[in-house]
Amino acid sequence: MAGYSHFDDFGRPLMVDVSGKKHTRRKAAAECFVKLPEKVCDALKNRGVSKGDPMRVAELSGIMGAKKTSDLIPLCHSVSLDSVRVVCEFREHERTLRIECEASADDATGVEMEALTGVSVAALAFYDMCKALDKGMVITGVRLLEKSGGRSGVWRVLKSDLGTDVEHDRGDRM
Amino acid sequence: MAGYSHFDDFGRPLMVDVSGKKHTRRKAAAECFVKLPEKVCDALKNRGVSKGDPMRVAELSGIMGAKKTSDLIPLCHSVSLDSVRVVCEFREHERTLRIECEASADDATGVEMEALTGVSVAALAFYDMCKALDKGMVITGVRLLEKSGGRSGVWRVLKSDLGTDVEHDRGDRM
Amino acid sequence: MAGYSHFDDFGRPLMVDVSGKKHTRRKAAAECFVKLPEKVCDALKNRGVSKGDPMRVAELSGIMGAKKTSDLIPLCHSVSLDSVRVVCEFREHERTLRIECEASADDATGVEMEALTGVSVAALAFYDMCKALDKGMVITGVRLLEKSGGRSGVWRVLKSDLGTDVEHDRGDRM
Amino acid sequence: MAGYSHFDDFGRPLMVDVSGKKHTRRKAAAECFVKLPEKVCDALKNRGVSKGDPMRVAELSGIMGAKKTSDLIPLCHSVSLDSVRVVCEFREHERTLRIECEASADDATGVEMEALTGVSVAALAFYDMCKALDKGMVITGVRLLEKSGGRSGVWRVLKSDLGTDVEHDRGDRM
Amino acid sequence: MAGYSHFDDFGRPLMVDVSGKKHTRRKAAAECFVKLPEKVCDALKNRGVSKGDPMRVAELSGIMGAKKTSDLIPLCHSVSLDSVRVVCEFREHERTLRIECEASADDATGVEMEALTGVSVAALAFYDMCKALDKGMVITGVRLLEKSGGRSGVWRVLKSDLGTDVEHDRGDRM
Amino acid sequence: MAGYSHFDDFGRPLMVDVSGKKHTRRKAAAECFVKLPEKVCDALKNRGVSKGDPMRVAELSGIMGAKKTSDLIPLCHSVSLDSVRVVCEFREHERTLRIECEASADDATGVEMEALTGVSVAALAFYDMCKALDKGMVITGVRLLEKSGGRSGVWRVLKSDLGTDVEHDRGDRM
Repeated sequence: MAGYSHFDDFGRPLMVDVSGKKHTRRKAAAECFVKLPEKVCDALKNRGVSKGDPMRVAELSGIMGAKKTSDLIPLCHSVSLDSVRVVCEFREHERTLRIECEASADDATGVEMEALTGVSVAALAFYDMCKALDKGMVITGVRLLEKSGGRSGVWRVLKSDLGTDVEHDRGDRM
Repeated sequence: MAGYSHFDDFGRPLMVDVSGKKHTRRKAAAECFVKLPEKVCDALKNRGVSKGDPMRVAELSGIMGAKKTSDLIPLCHSVSLDSVRVVCEFREHERTLRIECEASADDATGVEMEALTGVSVAALAFYDMCKALDKGMVITGVRLLEKSGGRSGVWRVLKSDLGTDVEHDRGDRM
Repeated sequence: MAGYSHFDDFGRPLMVDVSGKKHTRRKAAAECFVKLPEKVCDALKNRGVSKGDPMRVAELSGIMGAKKTSDLIPLCHSVSLDSVRVVCEFREHERTLRIECEASADDATGVEMEALTGVSVAALAFYDMCKALDKGMVITGVRLLEKSGGRSGVWRVLKSDLGTDVEHDRGDRM
Repeated sequence: MAGYSHFDDFGRPLMVDVSGKKHTRRKAAAECFVKLPEKVCDALKNRGVSKGDPMRVAELSGIMGAKKTSDLIPLCHSVSLDSVRVVCEFREHERTLRIECEASADDATGVEMEALTGVSVAALAFYDMCKALDKGMVITGVRLLEKSGGRSGVWRVLKSDLGTDVEHDRGDRM
Repeated sequence: MAGYSHFDDFGRPLMVDVSGKKHTRRKAAAECFVKLPEKVCDALKNRGVSKGDPMRVAELSGIMGAKKTSDLIPLCHSVSLDSVRVVCEFREHERTLRIECEASADDATGVEMEALTGVSVAALAFYDMCKALDKGMVITGVRLLEKSGGRSGVWRVLKSDLGTDVEHDRGDRM
Repeated sequence: MAGYSHFDDFGRPLMVDVSGKKHTRRKAAAECFVKLPEKVCDALKNRGVSKGDPMRVAELSGIMGAKKTSDLIPLCHSVSLDSVRVVCEFREHERTLRIECEASADDATGVEMEALTGVSVAALAFYDMCKALDKGMVITGVRLLEKSGGRSGVWRVLKSDLGTDVEHDRGDRM
């Protein structure tokens, strides 16, 4: 049976040795959703961006969060990211904010955690910006969409895994 | 209509001025869930803690994450936390990990963001520890359970808000 | 002759002992200017904020920078800020961006360094956002405008100190 | 018209993708000046370095500040610097401290922001060391002197750009 | 038997709840020693401080390290230090560098870890400055000397605990 | 006589320029010891790991500490570590905890400071976990065991350097 990669045989935590791995182009994309109470929806609908847009603050926070990944996740390698992009999309009819983060690096280790951290921090920052309106927001569906590069190659979330609330079409952006 | 608290009238971001607020005992609790694929469930079931327990690493990461909240969330005040506690609970029959974080401080501002950041970072660290087994884990239901202290007093998540996947009984711990 | 407060008699650096000082309301305001080459001025004039506004990113960066002051300045105390506010103002006719930062805290030590760090980091972030247009921007006039609170009371920059490029009227905002 | 490189077409902030860029030797130099009130000048003149030298603390702070650039500037890539050097020079007759920072890296992105952050943090640390003597110091002329490496090649500040207070001869150090 | 304070009954790590504790004046002092090979001793003897003094860099590093304690030690509370002082003393005849750190705060929790982190980081920075001369330096005797404040009151290291290499007289400085 | 590598001829601190150095595989190992008072020994003996194991927390802290080295040591380069491993070993008969850290990277600069920082932070975290039992623990024998890679090649601590309290056999693990 495959065991944990981050513990040795004595249960000690370890940072996986990547010294034997080749530097290749690594990419990862992750997404999450914020379920929006009515007041938050109204605020997003009614105020123009000139009055301040919490989605832009969330995107910037997500980018900075992705850069801090190895500081937050104890056994993550420090990765020098080539690009990070966080996109917030207000889905008015679903009363939902969708957040996606794409990250890439030329490295010996993948950037899945960077993409997941990017969407998580973006969602938390969005929550903070809007919590005076309603504290009932829920962050949901934080998951990896796909990753490529490295020995294990391409991984994509399976259509059949998708619950009804995360149905979406990412097209061929990556 | 109430507007955003973190923007001024010209759309500029601002850290809310708490100089007029009293220091009172602030508490907050948040939770989240990680949906576990079969391989991750099996690993949690079959290996004893002596071989390394990803839940313990996640809890420690969540505590450290809560302490970094003001570094991650741009407009959060720096709060000196009196206590942080992160609890991971493996719900084998639901194939789910439940994570709860309770934080408290004697401060002029609440600790909701600290509790939410605590569960989020714990979940991300857990994902990292187990992603070699299966990358299909999904973090869901990240939300505030309750908060107390400050002018706005006690806030509790409503029973009626709860979807079927987050049904639970917290008892009277707080 | 008054000596340095941050060295002892043997030339050793020290963090000034504030244990005898009372916690009082401390405020400080600082400003700086960025001289803008033509291309940067044109970009600020011609693009609407919906296309992304480097001033908003600069303001957010300045707030975060102010929170990191004690991490950047070796002998600064860690201060829990009650408020931080950074305002960027495009002065088209002077081809200048003016940045002001106001910070406050209830503490035993002043927040001058927080205000100065706030404007400096905001200016650097603005430079970064616009450097693809022209690298010839110059950050100038970084200085304290006023501070209040503590034993030394109120300090204000003197009118007679002002060079022609920093002439301005702050009114009575503080 | 050239637009901002750090926003996409929808005004979202982004970290520029450098995955297509070659790793080459990047260098940058920046400078700034601190205008010194009489008391600060006197302190620099009269006290020997054995009693503590704020210029040495400023230089060390500037080096550390340059290493923190990607943490301070939201859309900066994390760069592994090959060298950083900060030099403080007391120009007694001009009542001025000149600070220069040179940084280099073998990377896909330039190190201009690292050099500018280096001089800015050095100046702020110097201010902090001397502010008990006089808070009227002004940091001025923060700018890029030159950069080399990368697709855009060499950039040098133009002689004609220089105001009288920043006239200087850097020789051929770079 | 007294158990660990940082684990609950299920082995989960926790940050001790200090919400019931009074804010009182807390002090702590720690020390350590660096055993110096001949080349390092010679360098300390022969070069004047005008040529750069690794002891001053170590002291500054130790102060900054003490401020980062809660970032380094997972279950430490974030403490706002009132003062930190690090003193390096070259004991030529013993071929030893002695480092002492005193820290104080008005807080609900002690500052022992801050003092211990201060001497440890100072020693590591000193090692780094001198390792090109000889990598054989050994850091030894890192320990708490005394602490005061809080419910447990004053604690002092016992004379009888002292080995011959740590014999010293601290006088009544604290 | 060889001088300090981290100061220039005028006593200014500098980060050594590694731009001329080749990237090669760098390794380093360091160790330290914590002398354990009786109560701490008893706790380690009598409580099973299911009740929480301070050694596991120390190991995790050491790994995270090693990643923060360039943030703690002012003139250290930022190194992207390929692996870090911290091992705590309870030597009951010697009433001692031995900690060893091995780090590796493919870089132009060595990782000695990372290994030394790893053991130091692990020891401090262990102290913190056990200090409620007895504050009399002493961290001792912090030193480099060996390093390899780079122009200066392999360095190993000499047998003859070893004092009686640090006698040990590392075998051929590296």
